[in-house]
Amino acid sequence: MEKTLIKERLDALRGMMKKRSVDYYIVPTADFHHSEYVDDYFKVREFLSGFTGSNGTLVVSQKEAGLWTDGRYFIQAEKELEGTGIILFKMQEEGVPSIAEYLLAETKKGDTIGFDGRVVETAFGKGLEKKLLKRNVKFYYSEDLSDEIWQERPKLPAHPVTILPEDICGISVDEKLMQVRSKMWEKDCEYFLLSKLDDLMWLLNIRGKDVECNPVALSYGFITRDTMYFFLQKEEETAAFCQYAKVHGIIIKDYDDIVPFLEEYDYQGKVLADEKSLSYLLYKIVSEHTELVNGPNPTEILKSVKNSVELEKMRDIYLKDSVAVTKFIYWLKKSLSEGKKVTELSAAAYLDNLRALIPEYLDLSFPTISAYKENAAMMHYEATEECFKELKAEGMLLVDSGGQYLGGTTDVTRTIVLGEISDSIIKHYSVVAAGMVELMTAKFLYGCTGRNLDILARKPLWDMGIDYKCGTGHGVGYILNVHEGPQSIRWRYIEGTTETVLEEGMTVTDEPGVYIEGSHGIRIENVLVVKKEEKNSDGQFMTFENLTYVPIERLALDKKYLSAESVRKINEYHRVVYEKIAPYLNAEEAEWLKEETLPL
Amino acid sequence: MEKTLIKERLDALRGMMKKRSVDYYIVPTADFHHSEYVDDYFKVREFLSGFTGSNGTLVVSQKEAGLWTDGRYFIQAEKELEGTGIILFKMQEEGVPSIAEYLLAETKKGDTIGFDGRVVETAFGKGLEKKLLKRNVKFYYSEDLSDEIWQERPKLPAHPVTILPEDICGISVDEKLMQVRSKMWEKDCEYFLLSKLDDLMWLLNIRGKDVECNPVALSYGFITRDTMYFFLQKEEETAAFCQYAKVHGIIIKDYDDIVPFLEEYDYQGKVLADEKSLSYLLYKIVSEHTELVNGPNPTEILKSVKNSVELEKMRDIYLKDSVAVTKFIYWLKKSLSEGKKVTELSAAAYLDNLRALIPEYLDLSFPTISAYKENAAMMHYEATEECFKELKAEGMLLVDSGGQYLGGTTDVTRTIVLGEISDSIIKHYSVVAAGMVELMTAKFLYGCTGRNLDILARKPLWDMGIDYKCGTGHGVGYILNVHEGPQSIRWRYIEGTTETVLEEGMTVTDEPGVYIEGSHGIRIENVLVVKKEEKNSDGQFMTFENLTYVPIERLALDKKYLSAESVRKINEYHRVVYEKIAPYLNAEEAEWLKEETLPL
Repeated sequence: MEKTLIKERLDALRGMMKKRSVDYYIVPTADFHHSEYVDDYFKVREFLSGFTGSNGTLVVSQKEAGLWTDGRYFIQAEKELEGTGIILFKMQEEGVPSIAEYLLAETKKGDTIGFDGRVVETAFGKGLEKKLLKRNVKFYYSEDLSDEIWQERPKLPAHPVTILPEDICGISVDEKLMQVRSKMWEKDCEYFLLSKLDDLMWLLNIRGKDVECNPVALSYGFITRDTMYFFLQKEEETAAFCQYAKVHGIIIKDYDDIVPFLEEYDYQGKVLADEKSLSYLLYKIVSEHTELVNGPNPTEILKSVKNSVELEKMRDIYLKDSVAVTKFIYWLKKSLSEGKKVTELSAAAYLDNLRALIPEYLDLSFPTISAYKENAAMMHYEATEECFKELKAEGMLLVDSGGQYLGGTTDVTRTIVLGEISDSIIKHYSVVAAGMVELMTAKFLYGCTGRNLDILARKPLWDMGIDYKCGTGHGVGYILNVHEGPQSIRWRYIEGTTETVLEEGMTVTDEPGVYIEGSHGIRIENVLVVKKEEKNSDGQFMTFENLTYVPIERLALDKKYLSAESVRKINEYHRVVYEKIAPYLNAEEAEWLKEETLPL
Repeated sequence: MEKTLIKERLDALRGMMKKRSVDYYIVPTADFHHSEYVDDYFKVREFLSGFTGSNGTLVVSQKEAGLWTDGRYFIQAEKELEGTGIILFKMQEEGVPSIAEYLLAETKKGDTIGFDGRVVETAFGKGLEKKLLKRNVKFYYSEDLSDEIWQERPKLPAHPVTILPEDICGISVDEKLMQVRSKMWEKDCEYFLLSKLDDLMWLLNIRGKDVECNPVALSYGFITRDTMYFFLQKEEETAAFCQYAKVHGIIIKDYDDIVPFLEEYDYQGKVLADEKSLSYLLYKIVSEHTELVNGPNPTEILKSVKNSVELEKMRDIYLKDSVAVTKFIYWLKKSLSEGKKVTELSAAAYLDNLRALIPEYLDLSFPTISAYKENAAMMHYEATEECFKELKAEGMLLVDSGGQYLGGTTDVTRTIVLGEISDSIIKHYSVVAAGMVELMTAKFLYGCTGRNLDILARKPLWDMGIDYKCGTGHGVGYILNVHEGPQSIRWRYIEGTTETVLEEGMTVTDEPGVYIEGSHGIRIENVLVVKKEEKNSDGQFMTFENLTYVPIERLALDKKYLSAESVRKINEYHRVVYEKIAPYLNAEEAEWLKEETLPL
């Protein structure tokens, strides 16, 4: 990009700032709902700075401009910011101030700090308020100053919503609203303001297409004791949806009306809202009119427990998805042994295409990660058209992928042996596989949270003095976001953090790994569902049902690194993989799978 | 006891209540410091009700009297209360009100509730205040109404304190006071009010003899930025201690002066105090004069981390203690095989005597639990002169015991095979042993708390659908209380509870068990010390050093219930037991131990 263009844009922004008497203007990277991916419409920070990474915040004053980003993007940001005059602030590096610290040092008494209050999280805004209290600064957050500058700004994404039939969702919107209202009642709240998109989709049994890989529609919900107001762009309303809304007592309002609506509403009681997914603007509006009760969205925990219809659909979809991944592994190994040209990108494309052939296919659940050899050691690696590796008949390819289907959202990782591998890889692969099956086969008392169980996956690695620097598992949505909460499998204790007891019907991924910088990365990931096991005088025992049936690499497993118990569990897993998957393979593939799943 | 006597005493109390216009009088079972054991002086509830159990609270009004106790004591309490007119309230039973609920139902507006504010915990008092808020009741808590009635009340225990030399304690009182003051400073507190007895002993490097099995002196401490006021009974002051106090800038005050002192002190800032160990009376006094900052006693975490001198002494003492227990096991088995008469009580006495022969012996660390067959299924079983079992050459004897030594406090449990045992016992014993060694050999990243690790001990049992209804481990004091915190090994998530990261030098017990009502109880308990292991780019790994070297019952272990890994660990443990203990045994004992520690 032309660097002068960036300077022109920043100058234009500074002009706007002068007009509005704003001394510092903050541009984060987020949409109005803090979605995992942001649409082009929301890429203001990229437009103003030229930096294209997925995480970054720009702060502009008349004097200077700074960009804060994390370790993944230091090199890229340095390159992209060169010549723009924007200073790079390397987050978490020693001596580098946070944005709040920077503003505390730079601002003078009475200065005005501006940002688009719709894209700033409540926690960030409240944090600034607190940090800058003694500066007595003013906040200007009711306007997106870039809007006037950005002439060719893409339009807000707007796709018509789809209604999911009840035989896909299992529970009607009426019943879900009843459940939510009973939770509002428990908290003594008259109203519930919901801006988390996947929760809104779940609640109304609808889906959208406004966020990459997340089948959600940009929207807000305001639920009272007898009505639900649903804020949606006009272009997304279909006749069928209007009819549907009417039947269920839902009043459709325009998406942009959320602000005037909340400003003018005649509140008769407290409003429940989860500040974690609430924008600062809405937080301020509600707080100025009534008491805002900050608490987890009741929809979140209700959504996390899959009902029997959802589980039935998921079992079916996970089987089909597992067949696709298994076929992919066979194709990949065969292609390389035959000397065909395959790259990280073409491998991913082949797998994506296999998924697209499944009748229920809607979309990918996230962009497929295909990382060869040392690239797999980077947890956030993404092969691009500009930069990707060609595969050879050696080392391993890590493929982390998933699909959105009418019947479930999948997430699976396999690290595939393409040829010769070192003994160190075999050792690491073996303990990762052991950790994966040990968590998968856990039996535990009701009341456990992910923090009780995480060590089961990590133990074989910890015994060798190896760790992976991320959680072991996250919740998985149902035809929704591939990452959802509130449950997770993690080990670290963070004082004051609430944990979630694992309830029957919750999904979790089981994905231990080993990441050796510059050498190799290994991750094996299945999706599990919490289920009840025996109940006796000692309590209700729980266990997991496994949903993913894709072989683990026999070639990379060595019994000398595995306990007899883990060997037994891997063999049993492979027996079931063959039993479930073989019927959907051709003779050649089935023959191969038989070999791949032989007992160790 | 004569039942009429109880009635007379209650009448006398009611007379006192009338004089003081107290409508309800509460008598809990506690001393002024919430020690684990209460001295006879504090047994007011027993004096007034005739109920001798270790847990119970009496509530008396002009109309009626009620006693609240837990499930352990229902039968005993029914018997002891018969004919006294006192109503038994079975705690935790359905439909039985708690004391607060009872008072809420019974009290009228403006009633006065009385109790000795020195023996009531802050939490209980604050709970009552909250629960009875709308009753607008008054509290009268500045007097022990029983004092005038109880003519022959035992005297407060008062034994001269002992100063521990620095080569036993490792750190001087000056340094400890410095550490405590830096923690006060962190919390912006000018003062620290300490009423936890073991913390006070640790801080001053002294010991007392005022509480059964706990080598502590009744005392209070009030620490300012430059002085420490230490409140102690005159009879406990020795010339040496007065001199010692002077040298270290400690001002000795009379024990009873704590109340007027806190009432008259000229506070210049906030007072740090841990409400968990603070009496309601002191809480009220301080709160009325200045801001009380509720937080864990800084002494608690400092004390929990044993220094290198303490650890060196402990290793030596645990070896001697382990030799005594091993000799005891040999004697027990031999005596029974020779047809000698042994009872639960005589077995315990024999072991207690072996401990007393150790030169550093001071006391038991708790009354020895000796429970035969089904008695071992009761976690709080205590054989008494009135009720004990004779042992036979069959089944198992559970012995949980420990000593106080000049060099450490021990705690060890073994469940000993006396003759034939069922296969079900062998199965349960094997998985308990597996759980014990799996936790003992854990390797984990720094940052873990007991909640991360508990499942390692429980997993072999949970896999069989068995649980034990208690924690897996507690901290152990150094020549102090056998139970200390803040660290523990437990699994249950309790929202809002703070967890303690396991730090190098902390002690924990490792004591899984199986308790089958009416049949048998098994517990195997070692004491472990947290220590650092390798540090690499993935972090600081931690592990445990084991301190207890007593054989596990080979006769009750069957490989068919054990993983190969657990077998290997048990064999390795036994190899070290033999190596360490055999040199201290006679030839006959050593020969026996050799057999007992052969690889499985």
